[in-house]
Amino acid sequence: MVRIMSFDRLQKKIDEMRNPTVVGLDPALEHIPPDILRKHVTEKGESLEAAAAAVVEFNMGLIDSLCDIVPAVKPQSAYYEALGPDGALALKATCDYARSKGMYVIIDAKRNDIGSTAEAYSSAYLGAVTVGGAEFRPYDADALTVNAYLGSDGIQPFIDAAVKYDKALFALVKTSNPSACELQDMLIAGAGDAGAPRTVYAAVGDLLESISHHTIGEYGYSRVGAVVGATYPEEIEYLRARLHHTFFLIPGYGAQGGSAADVARAFDENGRGAVVNSSRAIIAAWKKTGSDYKESARLEALRMRDELQSAIL
Amino acid sequence: MVRIMSFDRLQKKIDEMRNPTVVGLDPALEHIPPDILRKHVTEKGESLEAAAAAVVEFNMGLIDSLCDIVPAVKPQSAYYEALGPDGALALKATCDYARSKGMYVIIDAKRNDIGSTAEAYSSAYLGAVTVGGAEFRPYDADALTVNAYLGSDGIQPFIDAAVKYDKALFALVKTSNPSACELQDMLIAGAGDAGAPRTVYAAVGDLLESISHHTIGEYGYSRVGAVVGATYPEEIEYLRARLHHTFFLIPGYGAQGGSAADVARAFDENGRGAVVNSSRAIIAAWKKTGSDYKESARLEALRMRDELQSAIL
Repeated sequence: MVRIMSFDRLQKKIDEMRNPTVVGLDPALEHIPPDILRKHVTEKGESLEAAAAAVVEFNMGLIDSLCDIVPAVKPQSAYYEALGPDGALALKATCDYARSKGMYVIIDAKRNDIGSTAEAYSSAYLGAVTVGGAEFRPYDADALTVNAYLGSDGIQPFIDAAVKYDKALFALVKTSNPSACELQDMLIAGAGDAGAPRTVYAAVGDLLESISHHTIGEYGYSRVGAVVGATYPEEIEYLRARLHHTFFLIPGYGAQGGSAADVARAFDENGRGAVVNSSRAIIAAWKKTGSDYKESARLEALRMRDELQSAIL
Repeated sequence: MVRIMSFDRLQKKIDEMRNPTVVGLDPALEHIPPDILRKHVTEKGESLEAAAAAVVEFNMGLIDSLCDIVPAVKPQSAYYEALGPDGALALKATCDYARSKGMYVIIDAKRNDIGSTAEAYSSAYLGAVTVGGAEFRPYDADALTVNAYLGSDGIQPFIDAAVKYDKALFALVKTSNPSACELQDMLIAGAGDAGAPRTVYAAVGDLLESISHHTIGEYGYSRVGAVVGATYPEEIEYLRARLHHTFFLIPGYGAQGGSAADVARAFDENGRGAVVNSSRAIIAAWKKTGSDYKESARLEALRMRDELQSAIL
C-alpha cells in the first residue's frame, strides 16, 4: 500500500472540497444548545459525565453536518480536559467519530516537553503504546499542535512519531493573541539574513524548516507545520515567503478579527499550503441564527468556504 | 479561615521536613515493577485500563512510602495521557491520593494557550467547572506548569485561577534539556539592564515577575514560579539573583546531570525559594537495588534529602 503523506492527504481533501477550512471543536459548555445539555443532565445528574456526554452529542451533530463540505476538525484539548477524565473520553470519542466520517483530525494541545516525556506525548496523540504484547493508539490524531520553546530535542520525538505513523504536527510560530508580540517579536541581536535582525518567531520558523526537510511530501511541505495567527497578516506574508516547506495552520479568522484577505496571504502560488481555523463562528452559529445548530453551522461553514475561495483562488 | 498562600504552604512543608524535594511521578510502564503490571494484566487483559490500574497502584505505594519525608509530588501528565482516558483517571486518582496524604501536588503539563482556552486549562487543573448548579474540581492540583511562549495574556488566566483558588504555577524559563539554548539563550537586540543584552529566558523571567507582583506571599515569593534546569547552574545563579519574587522548580537533578552543588544555587539566603525534582532516580530506584520498590524509593529520597541539606544549609 502506498502511503500518502499526512499533509498531502489533508491537501487533497482541501482540493477536492475546494475548502481550506478546519473547524475548531471547542465545546465550551455555553456553546452547546441548552436542550442537549439538559437532556444529559436529566439522565445523569449535574456531573462532568453529563457535560461530556453533551459534548459528544454536540460534536457528532456538527461532524455529521460538516463532513461533506469541511475537510478537517481541530478539537481544542483544553475544553475536554476541563471535564476531567470524562472529558478525555469525549475527546477520544470525538476523534474516533470524525475519523470514521473521513475527516482529518488535528488535536490542538500545544504539547511540549523534553526527551522521553515528549515521546510519551507523541505516543498519546500520534503514535501507539504497548501493554504486554498488545499495541494501542490512545487518540490517533492525524496531527498535533506543539510548542517549540524547548528547542529541537523537544520537537524531535514528535517528528519521529509523525514519520513512523504517517502523522504531522504544527508548532507555534506566531500566535494570534494580542500578547504574542511580547516574546515572539523580540529582535535577536546580530545580523540575520539580508543584514536585518530576525525576530524570535522567525528563528522558530527557521528552526522548524531546518529539522524537517527530510519529511517533505508531494506538495513540497514537510510534516512540521506552523501555527501563524490570522490577526498578523504582514507576518503571515513574511513567513509564507520565508518558510517554503512549512504548511500553515491559521487561527484567528473571524471572531478574533482576521479577514479572508488576511488569511489569503498564507497560501502559496498554487493556492495551497495552509488551512484556516474557525471555531466559535461555526459551532456556535446557532446563537446568532436562533435555529438548529447543525444547519446553522453548515450555513456558516459554506459562507466561510465561499469567502475563502474568492479571496484565495 | 486564614488561607496560607499556595507556595507558602509548600515552603512550610519543606521547612518542616527539611527537604526541598518534589518526587516526579513519571510512571513510564518500564519503571513499574513487572509483578504489579502483570497482576493487572491478568485481571483486565492487555489493555490501557490494566496499565492505568498498575500506574495507580505503583503511585499509591510510592506516596505511602514517601509522604512523611517528601513534601511534594509532580505527576508528569504525558505518562498519564499516553494511556488515553484511562490515564486521565489514573492522574486524577494519583492527585487525590497524594492530597489525602498531605502532599503538595504539582501537575507538570506545560499547558499554554490564549484567552478563553487558557481559562479552560486553568479550570481543569487549578480551578473549577460548573455544570448546571453544581461545581466540580476536575484535577485540583496545588500548582501547574505552563509555557509562556504566548506572552502575558496566555498566562493571566492561570494567575487569575491561582489567586481565586489559592493555587500557583511554574512557567518554563530555562529548561534542562540540551536544546534549551536554541531559543532560550538567544540574545535580544538592544541594551538590556547594565548595558548587557538580555537572553530570551531572562526576558521571560522578567515578564513573569512583572505580572505577578500583586500575588506575593509571606516568604516573598509570588504565585508565579519558574522552571529552571539543574543542568545550567550558572543560569540558575543568574536567575536567582535577578528574580527576587520567583519560586523555582528545578528539574534535571541526578539522572540528567545536575549535582546538589548546582541546585543549591537556586535557593535564597535563607535556604528557601526552590524545590528540586527527582523522578526516575527515586521511582525506579528498585531497578538498581533489586529490592522492594517502595523501600528503594524511600532510601533514595532520604539520600537525596541529606545531600541537598548539606549542599544548601
